[in-house]
Amino acid sequence: MRIAIDAMGGDDAPEQIVAGALESVEFLNEGDELILVGPEEAVVAHLPALKLRKGVISVVHAPDVIGMDAVPIESLRKKPRSSIAVLAKLGKTGQADAVISAGNTGACVAAFQMRMRNLPGVVRPGIAVVLPTPEGPVTICDVGANIACKPIHLYQYGAMASVYSKNLLGIEKPRVGLMSIGSEDAKGNEVVKKALELMKSDSDMNLVGNVEGRDIFSGACEVVVTEGFVGNVIIKLAESLVDGLFKAIKYELMEEKLRLAMKFKPVMKRIYTKYDYSEYGGALLLGINGTSIICHGSSQSKMIKNAILASRRFYTEKINDKIVEYLSGTCVRTTDE
Amino acid sequence: MRIAIDAMGGDDAPEQIVAGALESVEFLNEGDELILVGPEEAVVAHLPALKLRKGVISVVHAPDVIGMDAVPIESLRKKPRSSIAVLAKLGKTGQADAVISAGNTGACVAAFQMRMRNLPGVVRPGIAVVLPTPEGPVTICDVGANIACKPIHLYQYGAMASVYSKNLLGIEKPRVGLMSIGSEDAKGNEVVKKALELMKSDSDMNLVGNVEGRDIFSGACEVVVTEGFVGNVIIKLAESLVDGLFKAIKYELMEEKLRLAMKFKPVMKRIYTKYDYSEYGGALLLGINGTSIICHGSSQSKMIKNAILASRRFYTEKINDKIVEYLSGTCVRTTDE
Repeated sequence: MRIAIDAMGGDDAPEQIVAGALESVEFLNEGDELILVGPEEAVVAHLPALKLRKGVISVVHAPDVIGMDAVPIESLRKKPRSSIAVLAKLGKTGQADAVISAGNTGACVAAFQMRMRNLPGVVRPGIAVVLPTPEGPVTICDVGANIACKPIHLYQYGAMASVYSKNLLGIEKPRVGLMSIGSEDAKGNEVVKKALELMKSDSDMNLVGNVEGRDIFSGACEVVVTEGFVGNVIIKLAESLVDGLFKAIKYELMEEKLRLAMKFKPVMKRIYTKYDYSEYGGALLLGINGTSIICHGSSQSKMIKNAILASRRFYTEKINDKIVEYLSGTCVRTTDE
Repeated sequence: MRIAIDAMGGDDAPEQIVAGALESVEFLNEGDELILVGPEEAVVAHLPALKLRKGVISVVHAPDVIGMDAVPIESLRKKPRSSIAVLAKLGKTGQADAVISAGNTGACVAAFQMRMRNLPGVVRPGIAVVLPTPEGPVTICDVGANIACKPIHLYQYGAMASVYSKNLLGIEKPRVGLMSIGSEDAKGNEVVKKALELMKSDSDMNLVGNVEGRDIFSGACEVVVTEGFVGNVIIKLAESLVDGLFKAIKYELMEEKLRLAMKFKPVMKRIYTKYDYSEYGGALLLGINGTSIICHGSSQSKMIKNAILASRRFYTEKINDKIVEYLSGTCVRTTDE
């Protein structure tokens, strides 16, 4: 399997990206290859020559970089030789079986969608993130690819995330919750209400109905379906709140007594692991005809390593085939897009 | 000042509601009165006769109750003698200067808005909640009154929450952030982009621009403006995540060593206080021609006591007059509603 990685994506590229690629090597299978995409000289500077010679890691030259805050479509047009654009091309031509970037999310979504196209039957791809919770992993989709959701998009996010949750997280019949502002069917806006109807009409979906913000970490469901604006706010809030709380506790402990803090360290570490986002290796762009993972801009090497391994599982477990199979078997169709 | 309280609102009514009213008495001023609204017999059963005799607390009979999950408009029509309907009437006729309920939020918003009407210049009321954060209190509006927001509504939420934050929380020039999915102006949906334009055109508003989910608890601003769906998800998620984390820590500590847990207790308590929602006493319905507070359905006596005291501050500081003054002085107008 060939996995292409945007060496220039993220706040700490290329150092952390290349480091993550190197860390992943020992977990790869015989014959797996990593392709680092970026300005050749800059990338090679961070690579031990040995790895290159052994043929596990190669570099594909892409001289330009799209900034984290650049306007997606515009920058892709202006920079066809940027690492993200080249990455998408490798994904399209089959030179890479999976593409990974910690760069500009909007540019990644646009480039992957334009080049690699949607899976048959998928109306709109969505970004899925696995949130670690004390009750187990919760897959939330979409977290920012689509802020103009139609009911059919939400339905398909539920379907795709269910397939993912079942086949990669090992949850036999993942319970699906639709994010709303109350658990009763009548709660929510028109799009949510219509999406609920669609989801109800699919007897294969293990629907629990509407869920609320408080249900995400409480074990109410294993799949949370929401439109991209709300999903984006959710993951950024959850992440910052968990980090902030742990920092606050650390600070208070230091004030109290250093010895107490030391004793408490293993306890905190154990809890923190349950909420550690990097475990699941980035966000999957579900619905794309290919394997694509978008990582956090602040990704460090551990996240990149995990993303590489996650992309391999996604690819070898043929999740896309299973999504196509699910969607071709459901009675829920659309004609409006 | 006369403060009317829905004695039947919330999961633990009337016990906790009446208890909260009693707890607040010692903090009231000479001449202040509390009016408990609910089935007379049930309410009086929880009241010491002494308090009633002294004229501080009276009961207004309302035999019906609107359930927490009832459909708002429908239930108000069917139950004109419900505690929420009677509460709104007291607010309208001036028999009460403030109304407080921990009951069905939708029914409260509908009843208060229909009976008490909007403040002059206000297009749509919004629910504001003060989130305690390590960086100080952050006022977020709207958290569920309005899930079909227009740009002018969002602008006015920023204006009203600023007036509130300045005059009741003592923040001289509260920084206002508009919830979006990226900090750049181009990020967000059409409503958000247009709202940002309106907010920019008001030079009295201390706008920081778009903010993200991660900015709420990080000290990026003191006022967060968002539409009701997103705001509702935010507060429910934040609340549950904070509670969940503290529970997880407690659980892990108990597993570890009881003695360590005991030592750690004061530290946790100190941190918890910074995130304790009940401190600010419920949510304000901003933009209503009156003082109205809607409390969490799970409110205990402390929350009700704090809501009573918060309503007094809101009333005596004439926040509504200041909102009207602000909105009459701004150049941002609307003609579309």
